[in-house]
Amino acid sequence: MKKVAIIMGSDSDLPVAEKAVTVLKEFEIPYEVHVYSAHRTPDEARDFTLNAEANGFGVIISIAGMAAHLGGVIAASTTLPVIGVPCKSSVLDGMDALLSTVMMPSGIPVATVAIGGGANAALLAAEMLALSDGELSQKLKAKRESDKKKVLEKDAAVQEKLG
Amino acid sequence: MKKVAIIMGSDSDLPVAEKAVTVLKEFEIPYEVHVYSAHRTPDEARDFTLNAEANGFGVIISIAGMAAHLGGVIAASTTLPVIGVPCKSSVLDGMDALLSTVMMPSGIPVATVAIGGGANAALLAAEMLALSDGELSQKLKAKRESDKKKVLEKDAAVQEKLG
Amino acid sequence: MKKVAIIMGSDSDLPVAEKAVTVLKEFEIPYEVHVYSAHRTPDEARDFTLNAEANGFGVIISIAGMAAHLGGVIAASTTLPVIGVPCKSSVLDGMDALLSTVMMPSGIPVATVAIGGGANAALLAAEMLALSDGELSQKLKAKRESDKKKVLEKDAAVQEKLG
Amino acid sequence: MKKVAIIMGSDSDLPVAEKAVTVLKEFEIPYEVHVYSAHRTPDEARDFTLNAEANGFGVIISIAGMAAHLGGVIAASTTLPVIGVPCKSSVLDGMDALLSTVMMPSGIPVATVAIGGGANAALLAAEMLALSDGELSQKLKAKRESDKKKVLEKDAAVQEKLG
Amino acid sequence: MKKVAIIMGSDSDLPVAEKAVTVLKEFEIPYEVHVYSAHRTPDEARDFTLNAEANGFGVIISIAGMAAHLGGVIAASTTLPVIGVPCKSSVLDGMDALLSTVMMPSGIPVATVAIGGGANAALLAAEMLALSDGELSQKLKAKRESDKKKVLEKDAAVQEKLG
Amino acid sequence: MKKVAIIMGSDSDLPVAEKAVTVLKEFEIPYEVHVYSAHRTPDEARDFTLNAEANGFGVIISIAGMAAHLGGVIAASTTLPVIGVPCKSSVLDGMDALLSTVMMPSGIPVATVAIGGGANAALLAAEMLALSDGELSQKLKAKRESDKKKVLEKDAAVQEKLG
Amino acid sequence: MKKVAIIMGSDSDLPVAEKAVTVLKEFEIPYEVHVYSAHRTPDEARDFTLNAEANGFGVIISIAGMAAHLGGVIAASTTLPVIGVPCKSSVLDGMDALLSTVMMPSGIPVATVAIGGGANAALLAAEMLALSDGELSQKLKAKRESDKKKVLEKDAAVQEKLG
Amino acid sequence: MKKVAIIMGSDSDLPVAEKAVTVLKEFEIPYEVHVYSAHRTPDEARDFTLNAEANGFGVIISIAGMAAHLGGVIAASTTLPVIGVPCKSSVLDGMDALLSTVMMPSGIPVATVAIGGGANAALLAAEMLALSDGELSQKLKAKRESDKKKVLEKDAAVQEKLG
Repeated sequence: MKKVAIIMGSDSDLPVAEKAVTVLKEFEIPYEVHVYSAHRTPDEARDFTLNAEANGFGVIISIAGMAAHLGGVIAASTTLPVIGVPCKSSVLDGMDALLSTVMMPSGIPVATVAIGGGANAALLAAEMLALSDGELSQKLKAKRESDKKKVLEKDAAVQEKLG
Repeated sequence: MKKVAIIMGSDSDLPVAEKAVTVLKEFEIPYEVHVYSAHRTPDEARDFTLNAEANGFGVIISIAGMAAHLGGVIAASTTLPVIGVPCKSSVLDGMDALLSTVMMPSGIPVATVAIGGGANAALLAAEMLALSDGELSQKLKAKRESDKKKVLEKDAAVQEKLG
Repeated sequence: MKKVAIIMGSDSDLPVAEKAVTVLKEFEIPYEVHVYSAHRTPDEARDFTLNAEANGFGVIISIAGMAAHLGGVIAASTTLPVIGVPCKSSVLDGMDALLSTVMMPSGIPVATVAIGGGANAALLAAEMLALSDGELSQKLKAKRESDKKKVLEKDAAVQEKLG
Repeated sequence: MKKVAIIMGSDSDLPVAEKAVTVLKEFEIPYEVHVYSAHRTPDEARDFTLNAEANGFGVIISIAGMAAHLGGVIAASTTLPVIGVPCKSSVLDGMDALLSTVMMPSGIPVATVAIGGGANAALLAAEMLALSDGELSQKLKAKRESDKKKVLEKDAAVQEKLG
Repeated sequence: MKKVAIIMGSDSDLPVAEKAVTVLKEFEIPYEVHVYSAHRTPDEARDFTLNAEANGFGVIISIAGMAAHLGGVIAASTTLPVIGVPCKSSVLDGMDALLSTVMMPSGIPVATVAIGGGANAALLAAEMLALSDGELSQKLKAKRESDKKKVLEKDAAVQEKLG
Repeated sequence: MKKVAIIMGSDSDLPVAEKAVTVLKEFEIPYEVHVYSAHRTPDEARDFTLNAEANGFGVIISIAGMAAHLGGVIAASTTLPVIGVPCKSSVLDGMDALLSTVMMPSGIPVATVAIGGGANAALLAAEMLALSDGELSQKLKAKRESDKKKVLEKDAAVQEKLG
Repeated sequence: MKKVAIIMGSDSDLPVAEKAVTVLKEFEIPYEVHVYSAHRTPDEARDFTLNAEANGFGVIISIAGMAAHLGGVIAASTTLPVIGVPCKSSVLDGMDALLSTVMMPSGIPVATVAIGGGANAALLAAEMLALSDGELSQKLKAKRESDKKKVLEKDAAVQEKLG
Repeated sequence: MKKVAIIMGSDSDLPVAEKAVTVLKEFEIPYEVHVYSAHRTPDEARDFTLNAEANGFGVIISIAGMAAHLGGVIAASTTLPVIGVPCKSSVLDGMDALLSTVMMPSGIPVATVAIGGGANAALLAAEMLALSDGELSQKLKAKRESDKKKVLEKDAAVQEKLG
């Protein structure tokens, strides 16, 4: 199976990356995690990306805050799908990272998920890989069922509490 | 090859859909275009989505404005990757559609592109399908080269004009 | 008397739902509380809504955060009035939920109240039901009087403190 | 049948009011239209509202832009349901009117619809009145069917055009 | 000397009102403090305002949060200058109150100060009253001198610390 | 009678200044109009302000767009009340000017009116001057009556048109 | 004298670049203009930047819209000062470009000017170069004098028109 | 070597100033730190600035929050490059200070860095001074190398932890 790369712009984004890792583990999708800054290590970010496809990666998840250029910088060096996770920093509640990630100009898309959405980034990567992996597709459907059950259990609990 | 579905919430989103169609044609990716409103035709949107995988679709592109629920509603009924394109309406410059599309809760991702980003939505779909299609992957790389050339031609033109 | 349904998108919205419950109890309006996610349990949300009128409900209150599609999804399946309460999540202070709830396209209204406004949602439901219930209408007027008295008592207290 | 009052803060809001009037006429709901400014004619706005219930009104629609206080001012003088329609003015795209209308404090709800949403305001009023009017309820359901058909016709047209 | 009225929409705005009171005391300007809600006690707010000039008030300071209609409601019933202080509530950081207070339509101005700016509201009231009160004008100038000295002392302290 | 100074930061703000001039003329309030930039002519802006009180001015209206520092710069050099009018420029719809004008730190208030609110700035100046001028106060009250009549005429016209 | 490089992300930014060129010509500062996209020609952007200092450049001006990564990408490859000019695109009025440009993480500054501020970018570059160029410094001071004169002429014209 | 001036609008901005001081010390760049308010000590701010060049300063860093006029006020009195650091205050997360600092009108640039970006302001000042100081230029390049190493160490640590 193709691997998923998780690239953080800074190790302060670790909690968001860990949410992605948890999901990838759950689906038994192989992954690597790196800290590469678009600005402080542009060459490393670029070299990793240029070789990602050859190195067996299928999807790259980019996690970054503030003027979050990492997703765009990675997407500029690969035609693998790149998923961008904007992160909240100390001001502006992540709106800066969201706009920096999602408003990509024509030609270089970054598939953006919610601010702090590490888990959804991993799920989206799984959905992409599942396009050619029936077993993974089944696991995704099973997770939907399990998520649904959890909601229904909460429904029952709330009815008991407030009914 | 798997097909791409383009679902618009309203036919006022047609210009954005046409940008996606142009790209899909360029890559010879089969597609269908539909107008299904999350609110006015919820059953049709849901039925299309529940059967999308069985009907040979690999990726669904959702195009909608205002309180853009279409992407989320579609994503709730499939584990195929769903790409959301927020559209500008008569007020708020598309910020309402952007937040309604990208801020999905954990469990149901929508891969969001820029406001009005129909072309990038199609490119992202192509990148996903190219994960298991080497020929499509080559076409994507060729397009990057061609895009690069266009920029360099503009660079030359601007230097001539302003140099 | 017709019942009021309170549907939360997630049990993290419980504190807002409890504010609504408190008001409904005060007015002796029958109610049910459910947790149905527009995305994780779309069928349950839809089935509940399609049967709501037949099951004796008159108004549905939808409480949800982030890309809050629940109000729209419910409103799409009923012509009962639907009241939407946007909730604050960990980022963006509820602006995402507000826009996702209030900016509904023509044809499917959601009566939106303030971010976190669970009590006002219940009061609004009561005002709707009071259109054909003179006793409830009197209770609403009495509450206004009582609210007014509380303000005037605070006025007296503040004058004593700062006068 | 109870009447619907449409109160505009200024006659510059007329196009939005006309969208509401069109819907009310379609449903044969009796209505009155007024221009009462919360600031320039506070007494008239208040007197109209205090007498609205006695004068046979069931719902009041308030349409206003900028620092849109009209909905709140009306809601302060009645326990009839008040629907607020924020309007776009020359700056800020209606965000000022939206926040001024929807962020009502606890005790006095205003049922807010989308910026410029005159048609949805009237539909919401109809839904409220239909709570005790089976015929109106049927008309609302018929309109949903007709709206659905229009979407499906557009779907067919788009498939023909872009298919 | 004419009095200054400080009207709060809710006693939760007390800390902001106290900043205003402190300044008024410092300038020995007579004042009254009231809690009058534009929505819960509209008649009391209106009656106070209609009689304010006759009762010896020269300026009215309105302090309110959320959809802050109080300033506009007061300004609608008097031609005394009305100063509006928008307050931060639990969401949106006071932006709702700012826009609700400052974006008044033509004809009814509200002199708006910063979010939470109770002290500046009182200073502005003092500046207005000083137009016909030379002694008060001198006090305002003296305060400017004293404020300036405090800054220069801080400058000296910082130079010592970081120099 | 004390004069009102209208200071524009740029002659592109002339349409907003003219709205203020119209009102001042209507009330027969003497005025002067100047173009002084806080940044390009800081000395002239400062000299004018330092001498404003001695030169017979009672109120200063500052009109400026973008990073609108003019109101604050003027207020820093006088204890006369300063009214700030934020102006819309080519981007951001005046939000930059609004925040730059209204969010003044403690000690130096600027009485801010709506974006583009030239007329309200002049009315506010008139209200301040009327504190010690009974005749002007009567004119303000008469204008309120006349504004009210205009609204009621529009009410009649709308009822005729839409009734 | 060191040269100034003007790099546009797209030739749609040409009008903003021309404003910069006009100023540089006025100050007789040598310059080059290029179109290099951070995403479509990352290698060219990087190669130009890595060699900029050796090629005689002293300052680089980056002009870009949407998710404007160009300034950051350039700044990552040089320690020359980089000036970023955010540009307005078809939506969001340039707020996306502003936040993408200014909110750089610690270590890699981009000196950001106003949205569309091509002239100020060139002036800022001139101020930087003037640090070691007395003649250029004199020209900057002369321009300030000339700008001041223009404002005073406008002041005279406005006084004649509105006085 | 020319000195860098750090001017704070208030001593509450001290933590941001200290970040700048740390960087300047690291580069052995001489500096002075002052507290001068644009509004409470306009003369001191102006006098300092008018004499800054003669007193051996090369760059001025301005640090201010709310309606942050300090950068513009300083830039109006010098042709030295002025760097503006917007600061977060108790509301609005620094957006007010950002817009007040960056949106300068044509003619008077302020080189704006991120909200709270004291370290980047100092780095930018160093980059400007390094234009004519080869040794400082080398130090800047060395810091980039050191920053890069730190990121790579974090990359190694993260791989160990999550790999």
